[in-house]
Amino acid sequence: MSVHPTVVIVGAGFGGLRAARALRHAPIKVVLIDQHNYHLFQPLLYQVATAGLSPADISHPVRAILRGQANLHFRMAQVTGVDLAARRLQLSTGELGYDYLILAVGGQTNFFGLESVARNGFGMKTLEEATQIRNQLLQMFELAAQEPDADLRRALLTFVVVGGGPTGVECAGAIAELIRLVLVKDYASNVNAAVNLKEARVVLLEATDKLLAAMPESLQEATAETLWRKHVEVRFGAAVADFDGRKVTLKGGEVIPARTLIWAAGVRAAALLDGVGLKQGRLGRVVVQPTLQTPDHPEVFVVGDAAYLEHDGQPLPMVAPVAMQQAEVAAHNILNLLAQRPLRTFEYHDPGSLATIGRNAAVAQLGRWHLRGFPAWVMWLVVHILQLIGFRNRLLVLINWAWDYIFYDRGVRIISGK
Amino acid sequence: MSVHPTVVIVGAGFGGLRAARALRHAPIKVVLIDQHNYHLFQPLLYQVATAGLSPADISHPVRAILRGQANLHFRMAQVTGVDLAARRLQLSTGELGYDYLILAVGGQTNFFGLESVARNGFGMKTLEEATQIRNQLLQMFELAAQEPDADLRRALLTFVVVGGGPTGVECAGAIAELIRLVLVKDYASNVNAAVNLKEARVVLLEATDKLLAAMPESLQEATAETLWRKHVEVRFGAAVADFDGRKVTLKGGEVIPARTLIWAAGVRAAALLDGVGLKQGRLGRVVVQPTLQTPDHPEVFVVGDAAYLEHDGQPLPMVAPVAMQQAEVAAHNILNLLAQRPLRTFEYHDPGSLATIGRNAAVAQLGRWHLRGFPAWVMWLVVHILQLIGFRNRLLVLINWAWDYIFYDRGVRIISGK
Repeated sequence: MSVHPTVVIVGAGFGGLRAARALRHAPIKVVLIDQHNYHLFQPLLYQVATAGLSPADISHPVRAILRGQANLHFRMAQVTGVDLAARRLQLSTGELGYDYLILAVGGQTNFFGLESVARNGFGMKTLEEATQIRNQLLQMFELAAQEPDADLRRALLTFVVVGGGPTGVECAGAIAELIRLVLVKDYASNVNAAVNLKEARVVLLEATDKLLAAMPESLQEATAETLWRKHVEVRFGAAVADFDGRKVTLKGGEVIPARTLIWAAGVRAAALLDGVGLKQGRLGRVVVQPTLQTPDHPEVFVVGDAAYLEHDGQPLPMVAPVAMQQAEVAAHNILNLLAQRPLRTFEYHDPGSLATIGRNAAVAQLGRWHLRGFPAWVMWLVVHILQLIGFRNRLLVLINWAWDYIFYDRGVRIISGK
Repeated sequence: MSVHPTVVIVGAGFGGLRAARALRHAPIKVVLIDQHNYHLFQPLLYQVATAGLSPADISHPVRAILRGQANLHFRMAQVTGVDLAARRLQLSTGELGYDYLILAVGGQTNFFGLESVARNGFGMKTLEEATQIRNQLLQMFELAAQEPDADLRRALLTFVVVGGGPTGVECAGAIAELIRLVLVKDYASNVNAAVNLKEARVVLLEATDKLLAAMPESLQEATAETLWRKHVEVRFGAAVADFDGRKVTLKGGEVIPARTLIWAAGVRAAALLDGVGLKQGRLGRVVVQPTLQTPDHPEVFVVGDAAYLEHDGQPLPMVAPVAMQQAEVAAHNILNLLAQRPLRTFEYHDPGSLATIGRNAAVAQLGRWHLRGFPAWVMWLVVHILQLIGFRNRLLVLINWAWDYIFYDRGVRIISGK
């Protein structure tokens, strides 16, 4: 053990950053590890996927965020192993010992064993995946404009989004608007254009009979209504069995010819946790006590999507507010352990939830308040702008949004890569 | 031949776009082909490479630029072959016949047969290459911060730029400022930071004894002075023989341990032209007559970097003004041929040249006017902002620059990809 105890935090998401901040005045050494050099503002990932924002608009360098924190040491590295007994991490760049460990490694896409979907579909958890989706969407239109075969053209222009949670709803709404408000102008004036954007379809597949299951029923209905009005085909009771890159096959046998499938139907805890030797609950989440310690290793804390803890008999949702509130408690419990004070137990304070369905349309549930339509959308805007890390990002995102709103545009319609 | 004659333009760079615009009122079908769906504002590529701008800030969808042009048809495709006899193009997406052809395919990096440099170094002609350079620069700092071996650390932090033309000068200046004004803050406050940014080196290698060879001598001197003041090691008479990814070997035998080599020492015409059967001059450029027609195929025009034409006994430089002026003449000569009017011959009007060396520093030559320092830098800013395609891009770039200028920041410090 060094002079100051070492607290290692793995993951610079909402939980990891909050934990690092909470430890800023303590006489300890804090090492924050992430495989990326930036914090990603995940709630706006679908805007990168639909050409509304640039990757840099929703990501901010970790070093810039934590610049003033003198006890913090950031390392960009992948964690390749955890030796709980020796209290050491194996990193892609070497080894690292810890006295206390906070695992805030987040979640990853869960394809529930559907290998063809994992291979041919697109997840939407990382900046790279969002950029790939943007490239794919735009490329399908470019190919369709040169495709004489009408059936092939329709398959190129069919976009299937799987999962009626917030990500799926936001993504389907944004794709529909991208097509009907923006691309329709790009493909309108050219002579001999083979493509008529009326051929384009956006299909939202949901296995159950409701969208945004965590929302009150009235808002669920409003969400479906709004999506239909934006020409999204909302299909309930539709579970995907297979996607070969050419057609989506549903469990009932129905076939939808489509080249693009975006999978927003499942998340699990990061696979990194699987080999560690910590007891895991549903979706690979590590079981923690109300103090956020793991039962057998009181020096190891797990927070956020990576942690399994129940609230009113239900596992806590994998959302940013849970991660941030847990990170706060975990960090303070480490300080409590060091000071030999009693530990705090975690209790979740649900701030409510928000989802946007596009231009002027959103749903919001805040305690007993239920909002929809324009007021919910304005609230969504304000909340997300305020939360975006970094004043510049906020300003640029706001300008982008204002421009898109006024001119029915999406500025990042470039196909990158080869 | 269709009812309207078909003019095919290959390349949506400065030349191709200008040609398409010049044909907008003609009763012809114009087909513009590019392998990307965007026009790239190449003069600012080095700003993407040095984390100052996002890719979307300097690229704009071709369809959006040419939206109002009713006789234009855009196809995103790669040209895989040209059948001059049959007047047909082979594309990655099919075939296409033409009555008149304008090849505005631009240039590509020329490694002059240095295979190890081509394999391990970075070119800087495409958005992908610029993004790769950004990722590389930032990653070297992250690795250096975790590298205990001092020699390895210095190699990680040595950035070699090859070529003293505008691209090399701008790039070296921008990297030096990125390190000394921005990254120095990111790596300052962390405890136990292994890395001291004073170890970082930026080396500019130039094989001859002058920078910006096209500029007047007084401005060449001023450029070298400014680079030195920004801590760029300017090395004259230094030609690269080999780069294995670990060390740069010069022709004289000198070895510079470095992980990063940016090659800005040569450009040639796009390799696509090599197999076509058109007579090529120096650097693979296709020999054209003053009408910009190829000698054996009067229906085929070549403009810009792709064209070989002499002016005062010298080949015309590979710069945007040449491409735009030639495109104008080529387009009008097609209209002249259709109307059986005499053809125009090309004469170059040199608008002067500009290069920026960083904050408050640039050099400009406009006819007999020679500017340097702050006035040249302001002129550079104004010219580039005005030229940037698309009002939104201009606005966002201006905000980015203003922010960076005031706060000594670079907003796009994210390492993307895997």
